[in-house]
Formats: sequence, C-alpha cells, structure tokens
Amino acid sequence: MSDVSAVKAALKSQVIETPSWGYGNSGTRFKVFAQAGVPRDPYEKLADAAQVHRHTGVAPKVSLHIPWDQVEDYPALTRHARDLGLRIGAINSNVFQDDDFKLGSVTHPDPKVRRKATDHLLECVDIMDATGSPDLKLWFSDGTNYPGQDSISDRQDRLAEALAEVYERLGEDQRMLLEYKLFEPAFYTTDVPDWGTSYAHCLKLGPKAQVVVDTGHHAPGTNIEFIVAFLLREGKLGAFDFNSRFYADDDLMAGSADPFQLFRIMYEVVCNGGLAPERNVNFMLDQCHNIEAKIPAVIRSVTNVQEATAKALLVDSDALATAQRSGDVLAANGVLMDAFNTDVRPLLAEVREELGLARDPFAAYLASGNQDRIAADRVGGTQAGWGA
Amino acid sequence: MSDVSAVKAALKSQVIETPSWGYGNSGTRFKVFAQAGVPRDPYEKLADAAQVHRHTGVAPKVSLHIPWDQVEDYPALTRHARDLGLRIGAINSNVFQDDDFKLGSVTHPDPKVRRKATDHLLECVDIMDATGSPDLKLWFSDGTNYPGQDSISDRQDRLAEALAEVYERLGEDQRMLLEYKLFEPAFYTTDVPDWGTSYAHCLKLGPKAQVVVDTGHHAPGTNIEFIVAFLLREGKLGAFDFNSRFYADDDLMAGSADPFQLFRIMYEVVCNGGLAPERNVNFMLDQCHNIEAKIPAVIRSVTNVQEATAKALLVDSDALATAQRSGDVLAANGVLMDAFNTDVRPLLAEVREELGLARDPFAAYLASGNQDRIAADRVGGTQAGWGA
Amino acid sequence: MSDVSAVKAALKSQVIETPSWGYGNSGTRFKVFAQAGVPRDPYEKLADAAQVHRHTGVAPKVSLHIPWDQVEDYPALTRHARDLGLRIGAINSNVFQDDDFKLGSVTHPDPKVRRKATDHLLECVDIMDATGSPDLKLWFSDGTNYPGQDSISDRQDRLAEALAEVYERLGEDQRMLLEYKLFEPAFYTTDVPDWGTSYAHCLKLGPKAQVVVDTGHHAPGTNIEFIVAFLLREGKLGAFDFNSRFYADDDLMAGSADPFQLFRIMYEVVCNGGLAPERNVNFMLDQCHNIEAKIPAVIRSVTNVQEATAKALLVDSDALATAQRSGDVLAANGVLMDAFNTDVRPLLAEVREELGLARDPFAAYLASGNQDRIAADRVGGTQAGWGA
Amino acid sequence: MSDVSAVKAALKSQVIETPSWGYGNSGTRFKVFAQAGVPRDPYEKLADAAQVHRHTGVAPKVSLHIPWDQVEDYPALTRHARDLGLRIGAINSNVFQDDDFKLGSVTHPDPKVRRKATDHLLECVDIMDATGSPDLKLWFSDGTNYPGQDSISDRQDRLAEALAEVYERLGEDQRMLLEYKLFEPAFYTTDVPDWGTSYAHCLKLGPKAQVVVDTGHHAPGTNIEFIVAFLLREGKLGAFDFNSRFYADDDLMAGSADPFQLFRIMYEVVCNGGLAPERNVNFMLDQCHNIEAKIPAVIRSVTNVQEATAKALLVDSDALATAQRSGDVLAANGVLMDAFNTDVRPLLAEVREELGLARDPFAAYLASGNQDRIAADRVGGTQAGWGA
Repeated sequence: MSDVSAVKAALKSQVIETPSWGYGNSGTRFKVFAQAGVPRDPYEKLADAAQVHRHTGVAPKVSLHIPWDQVEDYPALTRHARDLGLRIGAINSNVFQDDDFKLGSVTHPDPKVRRKATDHLLECVDIMDATGSPDLKLWFSDGTNYPGQDSISDRQDRLAEALAEVYERLGEDQRMLLEYKLFEPAFYTTDVPDWGTSYAHCLKLGPKAQVVVDTGHHAPGTNIEFIVAFLLREGKLGAFDFNSRFYADDDLMAGSADPFQLFRIMYEVVCNGGLAPERNVNFMLDQCHNIEAKIPAVIRSVTNVQEATAKALLVDSDALATAQRSGDVLAANGVLMDAFNTDVRPLLAEVREELGLARDPFAAYLASGNQDRIAADRVGGTQAGWGA
Repeated sequence: MSDVSAVKAALKSQVIETPSWGYGNSGTRFKVFAQAGVPRDPYEKLADAAQVHRHTGVAPKVSLHIPWDQVEDYPALTRHARDLGLRIGAINSNVFQDDDFKLGSVTHPDPKVRRKATDHLLECVDIMDATGSPDLKLWFSDGTNYPGQDSISDRQDRLAEALAEVYERLGEDQRMLLEYKLFEPAFYTTDVPDWGTSYAHCLKLGPKAQVVVDTGHHAPGTNIEFIVAFLLREGKLGAFDFNSRFYADDDLMAGSADPFQLFRIMYEVVCNGGLAPERNVNFMLDQCHNIEAKIPAVIRSVTNVQEATAKALLVDSDALATAQRSGDVLAANGVLMDAFNTDVRPLLAEVREELGLARDPFAAYLASGNQDRIAADRVGGTQAGWGA
Repeated sequence: MSDVSAVKAALKSQVIETPSWGYGNSGTRFKVFAQAGVPRDPYEKLADAAQVHRHTGVAPKVSLHIPWDQVEDYPALTRHARDLGLRIGAINSNVFQDDDFKLGSVTHPDPKVRRKATDHLLECVDIMDATGSPDLKLWFSDGTNYPGQDSISDRQDRLAEALAEVYERLGEDQRMLLEYKLFEPAFYTTDVPDWGTSYAHCLKLGPKAQVVVDTGHHAPGTNIEFIVAFLLREGKLGAFDFNSRFYADDDLMAGSADPFQLFRIMYEVVCNGGLAPERNVNFMLDQCHNIEAKIPAVIRSVTNVQEATAKALLVDSDALATAQRSGDVLAANGVLMDAFNTDVRPLLAEVREELGLARDPFAAYLASGNQDRIAADRVGGTQAGWGA
Repeated sequence: MSDVSAVKAALKSQVIETPSWGYGNSGTRFKVFAQAGVPRDPYEKLADAAQVHRHTGVAPKVSLHIPWDQVEDYPALTRHARDLGLRIGAINSNVFQDDDFKLGSVTHPDPKVRRKATDHLLECVDIMDATGSPDLKLWFSDGTNYPGQDSISDRQDRLAEALAEVYERLGEDQRMLLEYKLFEPAFYTTDVPDWGTSYAHCLKLGPKAQVVVDTGHHAPGTNIEFIVAFLLREGKLGAFDFNSRFYADDDLMAGSADPFQLFRIMYEVVCNGGLAPERNVNFMLDQCHNIEAKIPAVIRSVTNVQEATAKALLVDSDALATAQRSGDVLAANGVLMDAFNTDVRPLLAEVREELGLARDPFAAYLASGNQDRIAADRVGGTQAGWGA
C-alpha cells in the first residue's frame, strides 16, 4: 500500500481500545507501588482514558473489568463515557479473585463453584446489554499447580459446558472473545494455555466466538505473527491484547520490548485484511504501568501500535510479492526491512495534524498540565487497582 | 488400575514402534560420528530392529523413511520383516533433502516444486499399499528463515491443497499422521509449528487425519501432557514420536532427560483410554543415537517407555479421583507421586519372564554377542545415515 | 557410596533449613488466598517450623525475613526457637517493599535511597548478632523495566559499593550469601541476574561472600547442576534455595516439577563433597504454598530433598567412574539411572525409625491433629504473609 | 554523542571482521544446499571477503578456521589477503570434527585425545605467528549428551589445564578469546555453557584471555546487553560473534531477528567505551547463509551492525543521564527510542560517500556483476563448506 493518502486514511480509521485497569495501580506479587493522581472509581478511569483519546484521536473505546468497574448504574456510566467522547468496549470477566475460585472457576471440581462462576459470566453479558459493549472477553486463570491435582480432561468438559451456556446467552451483535495464556497464576496446567485450545473451543461454539491474542501469553520462541495470520485465515481472530514482554507475562508497554515483532504482527494484520472494519478485529491494550506514569504510558503504547501499523502499511506489497515468487530471500526480506527502517513519526505527525491534533501526543499531554491536576484533585478515597 | 494382572496384561499388549533411521548413523550439523556395525541397507536395519524386538518383546513394528529406505522390491522387504517377526509401521515421507526443496516443498512458491513434493507423498502411499503400512507420517521442514521471505497465509493455502490431494488417495484402512515442530531447519516460520495448526488441518481433512506428538518439538515450557489429553478427548491423537530433549529438538533417548514428564504423558494416555487398541495410538520412537551404541540405546528407550507406562498404570485412580473431587491438592499429587516413585523394574522383569524373555533386555542384548557380530560382518559398503 | 550405613549416616546428618514465610500466606499478583490456621507472628511461624522438624528430624533451622519477622526482642525469639528445638538460620533482607525502592534499593540512582537500603542490610547483620544467625542472605529485586531506564554499569558500581560496606560489617563467623535471579519483579534488566554476576561480586568481596543457587531463578534450559558443580569447585557455593518450577519462578514444592533434576543437583553436591559439614553448604527451602496446606507442603518438600539426596548417595561411584573413563555412554548413564530408579522411601523410613521418628512424616503430621488445632486456635489477628 | 561529525568518525573507524566460512556452503543437520559460485579454497574465500570490504569499507579483516582454511603456505595466504586490501583476523580452532573428538577434545576422559586437541590449539598459535593474526578464538563443542556420561568437574579441571598450556604459548600481542555456548552439539552439559564459566577461566588465565559474546549462544530470555556491559566493566569483553536467532543458535544474519536487541547491545558498547580502539573489542560476524546468497548476506549483516552502531551513537547521552538521575522512566526510555526510531540509512550513505564508496553497498554489489562472474568462473573442484 504505497499510496500515502490510503496509508493515512487507514491510520485515521484504526481504533485502539484502552483498558480501564491500565489507569489504576498495579504491580507484582512483591509490591504494588501507588502513584499520585490514580483514579478512585470507574468514572475517573474513563476521564483518564478520555485524555488518551483527546491527544491521540484513535482511542475512543475503553475496556471495563467486572467487578473492578462495577457500578450501580451502568447507563449512567455509559452516558459519562459518551460525554467524554468515549464508548464502552469489551467487558472483561473476573473469576479469579473470589476465595471460592482458589482451585478454579468454570473448571472447578465442585459444581456449585462452577455455577457461581458461570453466573458471573452471564452477569457480564447483562452489563454488555446495559452499556452497549459488543465484546465479552473471557480469561480464565483456571488450572492446576501440581501434577495430579485435577483431571485435565474433566476440566475441559466443564469448560466447554460453561462456555456453551454463556454463548447461548449472547445477543445478536455480541461476541465472545476467548483469551489463552501459557501460565500464571496456575503453574502446572492452564485450562486454556494456547491458541489451539481457544480455537478448538471457539470452533465448536460458533461464529460469535473468537480468539484473543495477548502478545505476552506465549511460550518463549513462539511466532505470534504466524498465529495471527492463521487465525485471520480461519476467520477466528477476534482481538488483540497488546503489551510487551522480555520474559513471562511482563505486561510492559506495547512495542517497548520488541518493536520489530509488533511490526511483523501488524504486517500480518495488514496483508491478511485484518484492518478492514468488517473483519472486526479489536485492537486492545492490556498492560500494567507499575513504575511509570500511567496516562503517558498508555499514550506511548497507542503511538507504538500506530507506528507499527504505519510501517506495515508502507510495505511495498508488489515488490514483496515479486521477490517472494522468485525465491529471492534477500530481496523479499529487504522489502520488509525497508518499511521497518523507515521513520514514520513525521507521517503520523501529519496524520494527527490533519485530524486537528497536536503532532506529538506524548508531549502535548505532558504540556497540558493534566498530570498535576489529577494529582492535586484526587486526594483521599481508595485508589483503583487490580482489586477494585 | 491397581490390579496387577491387568497392569501386566496392558504392558504385554503395548506395542512400541522403532524407527529404521535410529539404527543408522546420525549427528549434528557439526559432525556425524560413524559407528562400527551400522547397517548398510534397509534389510540390515530391519535385522537390528528385530534384535530390539527379540529382547523386549514389545517392538514388532518398524517405521520406514523414504527415500532412505527405498528398495526395488517392497514385497520382498515386507517378507523379510515378517521372517524377522516384524511388520512395517509408518511410512515417513522426506521432502526436505532434494535440492528443489530449499525454499519449501508442498508450500513452495513454485507450483512445479509443489507438484514434485506432492507426488513424493503419493508415492509413499503406494509404498504403504505394497508393505501393508497403515500410517503415512508427514513431517514438513517447510518454513522460512527471514521475515518477509514468503507469505505465511499463502503457504497455508498450498499446504491445505497438498494435504487434501494426499488424503483423497488414502485407502480404507490407511491413515495420515501430521507432525508439527516448532523450528529447525526453518528458523523464522515453520508451516506446521504447533499442535493447533496440525489439529486444524486434520479436522478439515477428516477422520483419517490425526496429529503426531513428537515430544521434542515444543517451545520451552509447553505442557505436552495437556496436548495429549486434549487430542485424545478430540479423537485426534494419532501417534507419538518419543524422544528426549533438554534444549531444542535434541533427539535423545526417550525418558532420558525428564522421566517424570514421560510418566505424566503416559498417565494422560492411560487415564484417557489411549492404550486401548481401538484408539489406535501409535507409540513410536523418533530419535538419534549420535554418540551411544544404537541397538542398546533403542532397547533402553523402549524400556523407558515401558517403565513410564507401568508407573502410569499403577496410579490409584480411585484414590486420585477422591482427592481431586475434594480439592485436596497434596493428597492428589501424592497419589500420582506414589506411582512415579515406585520402582517398576521388578514388575517389568516379571512381565518379560512371563513372555519367555530375559528379565533385563539391555543386559541380555549385550550378552548376546550381536554387537561384535555386526561390527565384524558389516564391513565395506556405505553405512546408512540420514542421507540414505 | 554403596555402604548403606554410610548412606544412612549422611542422611541423618543432612540439615534442611525451612523459611518462616513458607508458613504464611502467599500468592500471585492476581490473588492471595488465605488459609485457616496461618501464623499471626514470627513466634507462631517458628511453632510451625518446629512441627516440620518434629516429624522429619532434619529441619532444625529456620530462615527469617526482615521486616516480615521483625520483633522487639530478638534474644527472646531466639530462646523461643531453642525451646522448640530450633535455631535461627539465614537472615533475609528485604529492600523491595518500601515505597522508596520503586526504582531500586542499593542500585537506585538516588544516594539517599541507597543509604537507606544499605542501612537495612546493616541492620540485618545486627539481627544476626542478636540471633546467632550465621548467614546474611541478600536478594535484590533491583533492576529496570525499560531499556534506557537506568545505566546498567552505574548500577553495578553502586551494587559493588553497598556490598563492600556490608561485607566489612560481617563478623568472624558470619557469611554473606548473594542470590541471583533472572527476572521478576524487574522485567528488562536485573542487577544480579545470573550466577556469573553473583560469583564475580563474591570473588571481589572475599571468602565470606558466597553464591546462593535458587533452583527457580534461571532461564529456560539452564543446566543448574553444572552451576552447582562449578561453584563447588571454586569454593563459592554457599547455599541452595530449593523450590520447583515449570515456567518462571513458580516457587512450587521442591522436587515436585522435575524430581530427576533435583536428583542430578544433589548428585553433583554429593560427588563434589558438598554434603561435608566443613563445606558449609546451606540447604534451604524457599517456596510458596499458595493453594496447598503449608506445613504438610513443607514436610513433603523436605522429604523430596531427602529422597533426591538418598538416590544421589546410592550412585555406584566406582562403576560410574569406570564407565566414564572407558567412554561407555550408556553404561555410565545406566549407573546414574539405576540410583534414580531406586525407590528410596523404605531406606528413608528406616533412617527415621533409627532416629526415633515415624516412618512417614507426612502421614504422621496429618494424624497428629495439629492442623485442626492451629485452625481452631489461630483466630483473630492478622495472618502473616509476604507483607508481614 | 550528538555531534554528527564525531558520529561519522566513529562509524568510519569501526571495523567488522567477517568469517571465511560465511562464504562457503552451510546448512542444518537435515541438508546443506549448495550454491553456485561458492569458493573452493581459502584464497577464493578471501576474494569474497574483499568484495564485502570493497563495498562497505569497514570489513578489512577475515577470520580463518583451521583446518577448513588450512594451506601449505600461510605467508602466501597472508600476502594474498594484503593484496586484496585485507588482513587476517582471528584464528578459529576446530576440535570437533575429528573422529577422536566424539566424546570431547580438551575435556575428553582420555589424556591422549586431550593431548591431540591441545596440540591443535598450539598449532593454531603457530598459524597466528605465520599470518599476523592477533586473536586465537576458542570454541569447544565439548560436553555430554546424557546425565552421568562424564564428570562435570573433572572436565573443568581438564579444560583449565589445556587452556593454561595454550595461554603460556601466546606471544606478547596475541590474545585468547574464549567463546561460550548454551548447547549444541552437546545436549546435556556443555563445558563452557555461559559467560560466567568463560569469565572465570579467563580471570584465572590472565589479561590476555577474554570472553567472546556470540549473540546466538544464550538461553531464551537472557539479557545479552547486560553481559556486554558487565564484561566491559571488568575489562574482559574480547569480541563479538554477531548473528541472529529466533530459537536456538540459528546463525541468521546479524540484526535480522531483533534489530532492537542489536541496537541495545551496541548502545552498551558505545556508552561503556567499547568502540575505543584501545579497548580492542573485535566485532566479528559468525553466521551461516544456508538459503540466501552469501556475499550479499554478509554485506547486509555488516550494514545492519553499522546501523545499530549509528543509532547507538545518536543517543542523546546528556538527556538520558538527566532522565535517569531524576527517575523519569518514560523520558529515559523515550531518549533511547528516539535514537532507535531514527532512520540512519541516509547518515550511513553520507559516511560511505565521504569514504569514496557507493551509498548503498548491497545494491552496488548486485550491480557489480560479481555474483554472475564467480558463478561462471568457479566451476569444478570441491566447494568449501564446514568440512573444508
């Protein structure tokens, strides 16, 4: 796609969804370091998300996490979002923080616990109805820590049963996004550990079930862009959870650990048609800002995804196809690297200018004074974190 | 399965298939160290396999590799096997050693190369017809070394097309076993890199296509027994390629690097009914003996698989289920570990005695004088290796 | 060492140190699941450790963690330990949970923070003086999350400076144990990431500084027993932190994920003289019991280490040396596997009987009624965890 | 280093050494695909290296590999190099391809084999004398495949003894470079598996022994730039073997798998003074071109290293230090990323122009007609490969 105006148009229409919990406190098992100005409730989280959208122009959607974002009045929260220029994105279920879920949720050996877990998932669909959210995102921490602890195949049966019940409950325009993760918090088996498991379940459930690729949830050495290409080919790529890792599920800013990998992923999206609105791929962030300022970190993550997308759009697909067909390994690789080596920051600055935005959203946010304002305003109360 | 006679019966009926190439020379990219007494042709390889079967009693099947085991007269080779008390197991295709396959075989950009590769696969089915082999084992080294080198999704299309053509050619009682491998010899993408990819293709092909789990072909940290349990639940586990690894695809003797893992794998086989003849899971070895004597190494590998199977059969499944249902993590883990910690060598010695064999196949082979005999006899000619 | 009485003597004299925090609550960043009967203070933690020692006979030492085990009166705590048949083992410093340490402790860019961190380490030496602890165990979570965040080499300078100051403060019979860890909680660089870094610092510090090998702190594929052999050869192996992992630093029970690896590690200890009291290797556990009952989990971990040690002691070293010298790969491997495949539980039961203990410590503890007793008694107060 | 002329000067003075074997055939254990025009002897390899230097201007040194580059008359070969504008770089020993070395070379249990191996190393020093090579590069494939196969610590003793003998033989201006590698071809233990082992040996040997960092020789997740910074701080970084990997030791073109990592490595070199001639860090390539054209692949690798170096030189070190000192994580990371995101190809084109070279060495080489010329000329004879 060498036509600059087409590239710009694609960049203007891309939507990157940010997570409400990215604005709250987070940390490791060793320590959560609180930060000044962190939101105390979902309304303030939305206000922070609105800052990101205001400066980047491409982040109008916000994922919610239940119960962390539980409110009395979802229509009111939805209106609040709309007033801020936002809309509610995926509803993320949480079946890993209740004491009953110590040994599993929908895969727990005890049917009463499974019932409770499934009921929570169904409640999340209610919240989708109330907020207009199109996506139910399911991540299960379910698994075991020790060989023998539970039956791997029984747990699959229980998982399939719960998913089927929730799938049935989905409305016409609602979708189930099934996330996979290699490990953590379970340390021996995880019930949905890889894309194959998620894909197999989604296939049985039907067209409204799709796979979420979280870029931090793979074994070392896994070729993520292969999975992306494969799932797009099968019509089963529902969404991304973007973040970065050097080791395990580090949840660093998207594009910060391996920008070339993010580019290769976005290139597979682009060349397999995944940017087209009708493909309905949801480009979400899912990450933590344990030690860095949160709103600026989300802004940088958004621009990192944009830069990777821009480079992917700049790949000379004709030259690439010619080189590939002729088996010219170095030429083909060279075409891809030419795009990656291009500095796309000027192009994105232009795109933003054309959208009436500042050329550098990161600098613009810092200059806006918002960070000092929220630090001064948000005093007292309980800061939001992974537990609330 | 605590009934000892049932355990013994299961151990007596287990069949472990050995690979013809395990008797030939092998090595790394750095060096192949030749050994004295190595077979010069497929007939001598079968003679070596017969030694393994003679001393273990559970290895009557031999995998062939084409063209390494190409002969003029397959019926003659089959009769030779029968005379040795053996039968022909899986036919392994080889589409990675012809100069044309430098950039791929069935996924190559050039349709002429793809045609050649598919024709080879079809020829392998002919050899199945001629030898009575039930299994076509497909491993594709196809992939790319550099980002951009070829289109990931185009290669999937080409792969699917070739597989469909070969699938159509299969006879009533013939089966296609599709192997996956994370990497090597391709170093960026591999066209069938994981079980999910193999599973998705097999699902589309139909019931005669099943997945092969090679224990050395996964990313670090992958839980192989989970995959085994999942595939058995889906009716898609066709076979194992057993071997061991500490790092990449090291191809060491089965059970030598992580005997506890092999036990866990065999436990999933046992508790998911995978030992039942009607499930038709083929327990193959696929490994190299680069520095150790080959026939004894295969014998040890066979007994290692037997020991893991015996321990898996000894798991007290009632006690395990009780502990699992009650959520007693330590009790459940303890039941499994009790079986693993049991020394099953005396039990297997009894099993062998009851089969009229020596109690210790490894010692019996060494005492048989065969090793000296073949070293003396097999002088001149070209030793078999991966290239022949 | 095939002499059974010598093996038994070695097993009777082995000391395994348990960690006070292993008796408290722990979990992942997602959730800490509290358990009934968990200690509320260091005195109760020692009571739990005494249960482990009472039933195993080999766990008379307890590691403390400061400030989690901070008390007003250390001599009183020490007397309490002595009354329970215990003594204080390593003092573990904690410079990762204070808000000031968000960007590092002894390697922080700000000298005031470094001063505070070093002062804490010096305070730990005071506590060693007060409790008779011989070992100062240092683990630094220090590192960075993002490329560029801080200077790798400046941080090494600061680390060296702090270590030198603390080393100077050590008494005649006090030792510094420097732990390394690949990652977590830092996700880009860790200031002491591997044994080489720890070794290099210890070498410069002097003979009282030695390396701690935590079995869960390595990159995938690392050969831990090699490191153990190397450090013993150099006189720099100070201690183990035993635990198990399938993925990252999972902190599962020692010997539960890869019992063969634990055996290989203990074999290197045995054959390099590491069991000798004058080598002063401290065999500590450092693990979490997130979902399983804590005291029984520690008991199982202790017996797992004992079983690995027993198997290592049973290796026929003469036969092994002969096979190694003659280059007989299979024979040498076979000697090692013979020991590993031996069921040593009867031998250890005898050892315990000779020590006046029950043959099965795990069963004996469960039968003792202690678990119900502490669950009933320890009501109210704040349960101990990683924060206290 | 924001002064453009200083950046240019640094880029002009950087020397990248290319490996003679990179011009020959190579492959995996599965297959070596031969290419047209590959050199038949060391003289032709030097001619190919001269092409790389002619077009890049920074590759005047060539590593030799003995015996692959064994010739009758080393002074003649050295003159040939000089006539081509080249000089002989590191002499690489090979103690892994002789049948005697199946179970090890300098660490082999048999002293006769060790003697033979050490004699080869001494012969390499003779060749250094004859060619003017300053560096003896030692890589040992020595290790074991199976637990128990040999004694880990005895092998260390033997290694130390051989290294000491060779070290003694070194002349005044000669250096020993000790490479480490996690695994392959050994699959259980490797005798020099990590930087710590190499460092410890080099430390004992003395100042003329230094560590080689091969970028493909680490466990997954290893932070290579940390090692680089650490070794530079200790004065023990002797050289790089640059290449790329996605999985194991893939030996792909430098900078092709993770250009951001290569940048981070070069940044540590730059900021720790490693570009200074007096630090004498040898920037070598060590890679294979299994499926791509060889001379162009080496050219691209050289320019990839140059681009990483250029970006590293462009880091605004004052801004970075300010951000680091103030603990501004995002600002510090941003400074680094600004340099990485810069397109340095125009800058390097200018540098080349100022050196009287074509702006694009890759294109210039392709346009030169050399590839067709060597394909036409080099017919007959035996192509060079890893065996010759």
